[in-house]
Parts: sequence; structure tokens; C-alpha cells
Amino acid sequence: MEKQMVLVNGEKLKDTLEKFADFGRTEKNGVTRLSLSEEDKAARDFFCSFCEELGMAIKVDDMGNIYATLEGQENKDPIVIGSHLDTVKKGGRFDGVLGVAAGMEVARTLVENNIKPRLPLTVVAFTNEEGARFEPVMMSSGVLSGKFEKDKMMKVKDVDGITFEEALSAIGYNGSEENRLKEATALLELHIEQGPILENKHVKIGVVESVIGMCSYEIEVTGVSDHAGTTPMKMRKDALFASNNIIAEARNRLNKLDKALVYTMGRFNVLPNIHTVIPNKVVFTIESRHKEAGVIKQVEKIIQGLSQIENNEGCEIKVTKLWDRDTVLFDQKLCTSLEKSAANLGYSYKRMDSGAGHDAQFIAKYIPTAMLFVPSVDGKSHCEDELTSWGDCEKGVNVLIETILSM
Amino acid sequence: MEKQMVLVNGEKLKDTLEKFADFGRTEKNGVTRLSLSEEDKAARDFFCSFCEELGMAIKVDDMGNIYATLEGQENKDPIVIGSHLDTVKKGGRFDGVLGVAAGMEVARTLVENNIKPRLPLTVVAFTNEEGARFEPVMMSSGVLSGKFEKDKMMKVKDVDGITFEEALSAIGYNGSEENRLKEATALLELHIEQGPILENKHVKIGVVESVIGMCSYEIEVTGVSDHAGTTPMKMRKDALFASNNIIAEARNRLNKLDKALVYTMGRFNVLPNIHTVIPNKVVFTIESRHKEAGVIKQVEKIIQGLSQIENNEGCEIKVTKLWDRDTVLFDQKLCTSLEKSAANLGYSYKRMDSGAGHDAQFIAKYIPTAMLFVPSVDGKSHCEDELTSWGDCEKGVNVLIETILSM
Repeated sequence: MEKQMVLVNGEKLKDTLEKFADFGRTEKNGVTRLSLSEEDKAARDFFCSFCEELGMAIKVDDMGNIYATLEGQENKDPIVIGSHLDTVKKGGRFDGVLGVAAGMEVARTLVENNIKPRLPLTVVAFTNEEGARFEPVMMSSGVLSGKFEKDKMMKVKDVDGITFEEALSAIGYNGSEENRLKEATALLELHIEQGPILENKHVKIGVVESVIGMCSYEIEVTGVSDHAGTTPMKMRKDALFASNNIIAEARNRLNKLDKALVYTMGRFNVLPNIHTVIPNKVVFTIESRHKEAGVIKQVEKIIQGLSQIENNEGCEIKVTKLWDRDTVLFDQKLCTSLEKSAANLGYSYKRMDSGAGHDAQFIAKYIPTAMLFVPSVDGKSHCEDELTSWGDCEKGVNVLIETILSM
Repeated sequence: MEKQMVLVNGEKLKDTLEKFADFGRTEKNGVTRLSLSEEDKAARDFFCSFCEELGMAIKVDDMGNIYATLEGQENKDPIVIGSHLDTVKKGGRFDGVLGVAAGMEVARTLVENNIKPRLPLTVVAFTNEEGARFEPVMMSSGVLSGKFEKDKMMKVKDVDGITFEEALSAIGYNGSEENRLKEATALLELHIEQGPILENKHVKIGVVESVIGMCSYEIEVTGVSDHAGTTPMKMRKDALFASNNIIAEARNRLNKLDKALVYTMGRFNVLPNIHTVIPNKVVFTIESRHKEAGVIKQVEKIIQGLSQIENNEGCEIKVTKLWDRDTVLFDQKLCTSLEKSAANLGYSYKRMDSGAGHDAQFIAKYIPTAMLFVPSVDGKSHCEDELTSWGDCEKGVNVLIETILSM
């Protein structure tokens, strides 16, 4: 007898995602829902009432993370599904919220099909993944995993001088430390890819086996500001020209490393930035990501070596390391389960790595964890154009249901 | 019999310059004396009372230009000496004011030596040369020469929304159009070099035979903003990388032209300017200056060709011309007179061109005009560190005295 698949109701999933998008929807159909804002509170309230209606028990921890648990047949460590509800300013309707809505719809699908899962199912909404209002990113999963200190995080201020602690109390989501996520059988986070690979390869499901490591540097180039009309070229110390040489040389050297390497000079500021004055200062960032620590090591050597570049135009070059992170490998058994589920459902899938950071990477430190990606149209995210088709969202949720039922 | 030279009193010249510097002196011994400000009014008042005490007649025209005239033996067109009293924000103690103080000290030297010059001597203080409060630069000499329309200039607003006309009335220097500088035998402007050439060549006097022509362009590079961690290098359209290629190519091509050519990319802005996001927009300026129109033509061809550069990283490149100006040649006879005077005084001198713009370049359109440069320490100007030694200032004034007496 062929097995009958349990599938999510696509219309209901869409409704849930659109309901969330109403909490902070922008004119151009994006979403601004900064962490611990009024919009975030409304989204949290909706999440809680939705889950309560399904008979789930709600708990809130001291970082404002919310856990909604559906009983299992066995009183064992739950399977956890979730992500975050906050967005960047003028972000999209999918980043984060898709992983939470997925958990909600998995629970609803089970309840509506009268399926009591073997293990309890917990849906989690992590607080402040984006770091758009309160830095750093992935703050609460970072506290859970011991990466960040709670006391420091509580004192972090937004641009208006409001602390994280004050904002958390203001929306009434300051819960108890004893409610924190501790033991769990697994954590699964469904997320949009935020890159072009799945779309480009016409694959529907990405089984994420790592969040790749990275390093981030700042380069400060100091020259001399002189009059653009009166200073002969040979007497100049032009910080922009020097930076131009540095970037060309960096690209030349980095391009010789592994082709999976990515690197970006995203922030680039010139002083005094007047068209008739020779620039005396340029400060720019270089960040680079690769799965292998050995490659990142080579990258760091190249970046550090840029201070000694020959064609420095007489400028001083200062290279400062800002931070790095090691590659986080996800649970191989879980990845295999996710692959099997996708295959059972007849969806195309591929193993891949995440270049972006996610809450799952911190949780992976103490709970078996894996992630699923679904395609981002044009690879876009963190913008109002962010888009994943409803059908692709549905497929991601179905893989989660299939995986839960197989565990 | 050896001729007795008439020389300026160096101490008095220094006192006059320091007195002017008191009108807007900054903590770091620079000067902020924006055009038509209270500080500018105080400097103008001082200029007028100083000249009146020497028996000079004061006139003010409708642009606020002030003329102080010392009678000559013959009632003919005067010799005019002058420059401007306004400065940029946090500018120096020499730019502009040196040329006015020079005229004042020439007059005082003649009076104190009981010399009545053959021709009348007019000292002029032009309004708003810097354009730091009211754009454009060289506004009033531009109106005198017909380059700018008075009516438009009167309506130009500063950042606070105050018009030039209102500011001029507020300080009480709105005079009559009939007082404008019309016929004159010559106009001589002494100015600091604002560049490193004289100092570098150990020459004391620069006889300026031209203000060199220039062109100014804006380059807009448009790519696509994607996530720095999730977008493979080959799928990027990075506007910063494209700009880097453009600048490298521009430098490569421009460096093959005449070695006297100067060019500068002074303003350079990146969007969205976030270290984890691939830049989707860079807008930067290229300006270039050279004496020969033919060379500027080659420069323009190169800059315009940058839109078709091959290694554009998939970005669109838009090249827009902002403006240009032709080379202005000064009066050759006057230049020769200035050289002779420097030689008579035993000062080292050389012919040179001005890369910066000056009021004299507009006046040259209808009055025989020339300029003198004195050395700028480290080539600096438009900053608090701007410096020309008192001795070098003195030499500049002495060349003017010698020239006046020879005419």
C-alpha cells in the first residue's frame, strides 16, 4: 500500500504568512518589524494565540524567546522548529517568519489530521535575530548557547537610548530563565536561502550542512589632502588611489584561492569627500567567507599583507581585524533525514552551505541541529522585494512534516 | 647712483594680517570668515577705516565689492590691487586676505614715503570668492565680468535659507552699480600658491601667466545589492569592484597624457555602504586640469569612454559632464613687469600656471590682469594649517610696490 503523505494546507500557510506581514507591512509590500517594537509585540501575540488555540503550552524565557509545545505520545525531549519574527528596516515577508510560521503550520497540520507525534513538538520564536535595533545579530540564541552574556545584552541600547531590557519589559515578554531551551532531540530551522543558488540550479530544497566561517577586517588608508588643481600628480598622497590599488591587489590574490570563496568590500568611506580636494583618508571593510578554516587562514594572510603593498601611493595602510567566526557544521543524521524527506516528497534537493548567519548556528552547539533553505527569487533578502513563492514555502513545510513524522 | 628701493614695513604687514585673522580666528589659529557674515563685516569695516585714514576714497558697488582709491598724479585709469576677505570654514590666515592687505600696505608705504604715484591706486576687496556660504565661487568678479547674472546671484541662498541679497543688506554693504570696477590700467592679485611647487623649487615669487582650464565629470555605477555571504562571486554585480576597474583604467589612460596634467577623484560615495551587503551604487567625480585645450579634449574623450569599459562587472556605467572652464591667459606685459620687479629686488622667481581659480581670471576678461604667488608651506590651503612665512608675504608686497612705481 502506498503511504499517504501528510501535507500542509498551502492556503492556510499563505494566510499565516500574510497575517504576520500585516504587523509592520510597508507601502511597497515589505515589512519593518524591529525587535521588541509594537509590531513585534503584535506578531508575538498572534503567534501565542494561534498556538494556544491548537492546545499548545506557551512559555517565555528571560530573553523573550517564546516556546509553544504540542504534547507528544512520549514525554521525551521535544523536536524544536522555529526561527525569528523580527525583520530589518524595510525587510521582507519571509526572512525569519517563514521558519516560525512553518512550525505553527506543522503543528496545525498534525492537530487537524488528528496525529499525535511520538515526541513533543516545540515551536520557537527567537528574539532579535537581525540585530537591526539592538546589536549584535542572533542575540538571544547567542545567550542560550553561552556565546553572549545576558547581562551585557540587557544593557544594549537602540538609537533612542532604550535598553534591550527596557524594551523587553515594555512589551511584556520578559519571561523566566528556567524556561530557556535546554535539552531537545533536534532543532530544525526553515529559512529562505537569501542567495541565488537554488533558483539558479532549479532546486527546491536546500539541505544546509553548515554555516560557513568568515573573517572581517577594516582597512584604513591615510594620505594627504591637497588642492586638486595645484598639486602635481607626483607630489600627491592620494588615499583613494592607494585604496584602489589595494582592492585590485586583494582581488587579484583572493581570486587565486578556492572558487567557492566569497569576499566583499561593502563599507567604503572617503574623506573629506569634496570633488576638488585630494582624499586624505579612506576606510573600508573586507569580509570573506569560506567553509574551510584553511582557506580563511589564507584569506587572513592576504588581507594582513595588504598593509605592505608596494604601490601605496605614499599612504599609510592600517589593517585591523574586526572579528571572525568558525564554520558551524550541522548534524549529519538530521541532514540525511531531511534529504530523505525531500526525496519521499519528490522534491529536488541539494546539500549546501549557508553563507549567512542564523540562530541555528548557535543552537547547534548543544542541540542536534539542521537547516532547510527554500529558493529566494533573484537571491534577494533584507529588502522589500524579498520573495519566495508560496509553493516553495509549502514544500519547505512539507519536508519538515515528513521529517517529524519519520523521527 | 644706486636706486633706493621702496619697501613695505614687514612688521606693519604682519600686524595687518594678524588683525584680519582676529575676525573669525579659530582655536587652531585658522580663520572662519564666511562671506557677508558678522566676521566679514568686521573685516570690511577695518579695511575701510584703514584706507580712509590713509586719505583714500571708499566706494562700494552693488555686489558689495569695496574699492579704496589713492589719488595719482594723473587723473587716469587706476592700477588695481586686491583679492577677497572671505574664507572657507576653518580656512587659513592668508588665502585672499593677503592680496587685500598687500594693497593696503602698498598704499600705506607710498603715503608714509610721501610718494604720490603717477596713476591712482585702487585697492579692491571682492565679495564671496570662496563660495563657501553662497555658491558659486568667485561670484562677484563673475558678475563684474558678465559670467554670472546679478539677479540670479542675489537669490542664491545659504544653508539657512538666507539669500545673498538679504545678507548683503544685513551687513550694510549693498552699494551702487555705478561704482563697479570698469576701466583700469591693470589689476594685480597677490595670492598664496595653494600648492607645493614654489616651496619645492625654493623659489620665492611665482609670476602667474594663466589659470588653467579644467573639466569636471560624475560617474554613476549601478550594480545589484546582494547578501555578501550567500552570493557566489560569479553571480555578483558589484558596483564597487566596477568602480575600482574604472578608476584603474582611467588612471592608466590619463597617465599617458602630458605629465603636467592633474586629475582627481575627490568625491566617492557607496550605497548601501553596509559591510555585509554587496554595493549596488557608486557615484564619484573625476576632475582634471591642464593649460592646453587639446589635452583637456583628450581627457574628456578618455572619461567619456569609461562608460564602455570592458571589465564592468555587469554594472551599468553612466558618465555625466558637470562643467568645464577654458584656460585664462594673463597679460604678458604685466607678467614681464612683475618678473622685472622681482629681479630688481633680487628675489628668485618663476613663471607658473594656477591650477586653482581666482577672481583675477574673471577680471582678466576686460582689464589687463596678472597674478603673483608666494609659497605655501607644505602646499596647504583651505585649512587651519595654511601658512606662508611673513618674509615671503613681505616679498610679494615689495614686488607689487616695485611694479607700481615702474608703471
